[in-house]
Amino acid sequence: MHQAIYNIAALCAQKGLHNVVLCPGSRCAPLTLAFTRHVGFTVKTFSDERSAGFIALGLAQQSRKATILICTSGTAVYNFAPAIAEAFFSNTPLLVITADRPMEWIGQGDGQAIFQYDIFKNHIRGSFQLPQTYDHADDVWSINRQLNDAINVAQSTSGPVHINVPFREPFYPSADEPPTFDEDVRQITDGVTLNQISTEQHDTLLKEWATATKILLVAGQHESDASLTESLKTFSSTHNIPVVGDIICNLHPLDSLVSHADVFLNNCHDDVKQSLQPDLLITFGQPVLSKSLKLFIRKYSPKSHWHIQVSGAVPDTFQHLTHINRTTPITFFHSFLTNDKEDSFAGQKQQNYFKLWEIEERRVVRSLQSFFPQKELCEFEIVKNIIDALPSGCNLHLANSMSVRYANFIGLSSKHALCNVYANRGTSGIDGCTSTAVGHSFENDKLNILITGDMAFFYDRNAFWHNYPMPNLRVVLLNNHGGIIFKMIDGPSDLPESDEYFVTHQKLTAKKLCEEFGFEYLKIDNKRKVKNLIADFFEAGAHPKVLEIETSLELNKTIYQNFKHHIKQSYEV
Amino acid sequence: MHQAIYNIAALCAQKGLHNVVLCPGSRCAPLTLAFTRHVGFTVKTFSDERSAGFIALGLAQQSRKATILICTSGTAVYNFAPAIAEAFFSNTPLLVITADRPMEWIGQGDGQAIFQYDIFKNHIRGSFQLPQTYDHADDVWSINRQLNDAINVAQSTSGPVHINVPFREPFYPSADEPPTFDEDVRQITDGVTLNQISTEQHDTLLKEWATATKILLVAGQHESDASLTESLKTFSSTHNIPVVGDIICNLHPLDSLVSHADVFLNNCHDDVKQSLQPDLLITFGQPVLSKSLKLFIRKYSPKSHWHIQVSGAVPDTFQHLTHINRTTPITFFHSFLTNDKEDSFAGQKQQNYFKLWEIEERRVVRSLQSFFPQKELCEFEIVKNIIDALPSGCNLHLANSMSVRYANFIGLSSKHALCNVYANRGTSGIDGCTSTAVGHSFENDKLNILITGDMAFFYDRNAFWHNYPMPNLRVVLLNNHGGIIFKMIDGPSDLPESDEYFVTHQKLTAKKLCEEFGFEYLKIDNKRKVKNLIADFFEAGAHPKVLEIETSLELNKTIYQNFKHHIKQSYEV
Repeated sequence: MHQAIYNIAALCAQKGLHNVVLCPGSRCAPLTLAFTRHVGFTVKTFSDERSAGFIALGLAQQSRKATILICTSGTAVYNFAPAIAEAFFSNTPLLVITADRPMEWIGQGDGQAIFQYDIFKNHIRGSFQLPQTYDHADDVWSINRQLNDAINVAQSTSGPVHINVPFREPFYPSADEPPTFDEDVRQITDGVTLNQISTEQHDTLLKEWATATKILLVAGQHESDASLTESLKTFSSTHNIPVVGDIICNLHPLDSLVSHADVFLNNCHDDVKQSLQPDLLITFGQPVLSKSLKLFIRKYSPKSHWHIQVSGAVPDTFQHLTHINRTTPITFFHSFLTNDKEDSFAGQKQQNYFKLWEIEERRVVRSLQSFFPQKELCEFEIVKNIIDALPSGCNLHLANSMSVRYANFIGLSSKHALCNVYANRGTSGIDGCTSTAVGHSFENDKLNILITGDMAFFYDRNAFWHNYPMPNLRVVLLNNHGGIIFKMIDGPSDLPESDEYFVTHQKLTAKKLCEEFGFEYLKIDNKRKVKNLIADFFEAGAHPKVLEIETSLELNKTIYQNFKHHIKQSYEV
Repeated sequence: MHQAIYNIAALCAQKGLHNVVLCPGSRCAPLTLAFTRHVGFTVKTFSDERSAGFIALGLAQQSRKATILICTSGTAVYNFAPAIAEAFFSNTPLLVITADRPMEWIGQGDGQAIFQYDIFKNHIRGSFQLPQTYDHADDVWSINRQLNDAINVAQSTSGPVHINVPFREPFYPSADEPPTFDEDVRQITDGVTLNQISTEQHDTLLKEWATATKILLVAGQHESDASLTESLKTFSSTHNIPVVGDIICNLHPLDSLVSHADVFLNNCHDDVKQSLQPDLLITFGQPVLSKSLKLFIRKYSPKSHWHIQVSGAVPDTFQHLTHINRTTPITFFHSFLTNDKEDSFAGQKQQNYFKLWEIEERRVVRSLQSFFPQKELCEFEIVKNIIDALPSGCNLHLANSMSVRYANFIGLSSKHALCNVYANRGTSGIDGCTSTAVGHSFENDKLNILITGDMAFFYDRNAFWHNYPMPNLRVVLLNNHGGIIFKMIDGPSDLPESDEYFVTHQKLTAKKLCEEFGFEYLKIDNKRKVKNLIADFFEAGAHPKVLEIETSLELNKTIYQNFKHHIKQSYEV
């Protein structure tokens, strides 16, 4: 009856997909059967579709393959939307398959029937609608053809696609008709190109390159990639090009990385900024985290800005984009390796420029060293302690909004070379940070350490509402009982409404939650305990561990202001 | 600076709106200021936008006015989607106002920027985009004009509308420029028509009416309305027209209501169904709950089906719709009061038809009486006990999926005349049942009693994550640690995958949750305790109370099967 549907699983397996996140329901039964009976898949079930979407996102990021995400009809589908938007903007492949009522029954007053076709609209790389009958050969062809297309689009563009599948009753085969899978399901493979820059293009670019004496490289968010780091290292050292990158660019293995630009650009004088102005900006990766870096480049703008990206739309984050290199960063760096400046004076200028960035970076590193330890127990220092103590080869997950910023103030160094950093910066929401980390934890044996605030943590607590073990999950909970970021911004904190309507006060701690889910609960309430608790925290265990620190919004705001003051002072000496 | 924005609040107040559900954020600051500084609003803040959306829905249903629902930019907006779909299909007015980045910054790599304009697509009655500058007089006019339009559409169509508002920085006025509100904000009022049926139309309908001898009235979901009940009572008794309605039609004050059609149509023989076949079906309200009622009318179809609905699309749930009466039910009933059948034989036939439905209804009522008490503690009987003990004048909220069905098997009677029944049957999702009940509880002093299963309860637990008291909230939690509805359906329960992939097992009970939120926790673990616990449960208290019963899926399935068997037996005697 549903042979063409069962063959969806066969095709997905052929295409190398293996993770299925399934949100149970009645109408999706043929899909459930297909993916659970086929031996090629790891199927996990989750009840809250919002959380399930982000778990699928984490699995896809960790496995570097599209996760198959399935749900039944109705608002279940809409609950995937936040994760799909994040996948869309963070370029994470998801194959979203939603069961639907037959088309003729949409809008006819039946339950769990909404308008599902193309429901994700602008946040999807492709919307597909499968036939609801399988009698005509073209129906069977269409299902195979659309699935091939959907998987190819999801994989080649690294983004979410949506396949809506209407089902008529009956959903279940009779007992004597168990689902089978055809061996010879047609697979359409999508070819790989080399994405080499043409000679003509290279020559044009070389002219700009030749006249530039302040070339700056800014790395956006990027997954950890040893070959890329190596290639960038050679490129940067050959030409003395400073490389600026937030914690989410995963270039911390690069010793010369300027990782504290967010801090110094937010606190230095205009003349320093002036001296750091690039004439050629080269970027790759996803958007940067640092607002002060964006504002700096928008104001102290380069003559040219080249972005490196194989395909897809390129945001003009810095407002000065002039050229898109349709190639990979490694290919780009390699092709510009031999193009040394003929003019040694130009080379000298570039070297000076490199040193200016190096000086600013070192200034922050020194300031950070002298700023700690603080007298009082505070979030900023706990984040530093955690980063200092990170076990080798862990995954560090950073929640929005303050957690990822704190971690970026501290930064990783080459001693963390084997650590990978993840953060949902596609949409920068707090809605799925925990679920995303949970998804990662299912796909690797490393320690997955999430640093999060109380708003993000309790918002997404259904990340834990399932029956799968997560012994490798660790959560550092910075609990200030409110949305601290609003206290950090000057505008709202001056208003009398600040407390009631801007800073959402919430009263929970993680204690009851840990009891509920059988997690190990560690509470930091004393500076002297920190070291031992962090050691316990990172030790192996059978269950997830939550390390909670409760501090006041006001204290953390004061510490943050003191830190800014401390940085500013470093310019006075 | 934001005068035109502040005047949105002034206009909303003039239009009589007063409830604001606010999800705090930075970009929505001008909206936050407008609605918190204006004295005309009750503003409540919630952190989880998904839950906030449903709380707004509950407030709107209870106040019978649009709730203003505000959030910041990014995936926060998408988290409103499930509640907006429910509002769209259940005809509940919501004025959704979302802050956005300026248009030119969408898709440029900034955080919390997604494509918000018309994001709710097919599930919204209107999508509006406000200007982002206020310098030109036309900008100011456009904001006023669009807001008038949006509020009028939300109120006149009883549905959700979306106003997207881009904001440039700065978001906050300086301290010496507190927000003020113009007195003379233009209000466009949308006129009310009488919706009378024309004489020509009435004459045409009368011809069909005159030949019909089996007129059946089916009431869909409808809010409680004493005038409607009175008008229907007169109409039904004048013409001997049986009135069939689920628990969600709120016609239980009508003594002659056939409220158990779902039960007998699911279990009786074909000859009984044949005898119940209508020749003219008259319906009003939202869709019905009962699947067996839908299947019955689709198969034993009427010659004509008239639906009564003032405006908007009408679903053809029963597949035989022939005429839409564009008037109110009361006007319709009144206009057909004097049209008695001239032929007394026809009148006699109609009376016989009425009695056939009455016989079936009484059969189920008797069967229900003899079926209870059961020997074992089970969900079905607890629902009966709760309904039997309902305090006068309470609100009864029924969660999807099994809870609302159990309650419908039992039914309310005229002794519950002052009770109102609510259920999210627009989309029949489990995602916001608790939040909706919480929204209701904020808007009235009655006891709000929610009957829910464990899937719906834990899915939406963030309904409780706020700082507002809910002393009038009571939750009956039917905890069978899984999605029981899949055990009730024959298809999936025959499959070996049933337990793992269809019935999501979940381990939680409400005990820790009650400790966490400071709720009173009552546990039914013994049949002898039931009466006293229910008495305690309904007593006044300072905090919400949760009454939990833990029973196995298998036991409840057996009881349900026994019940069906018991009903079938009633036909054997």
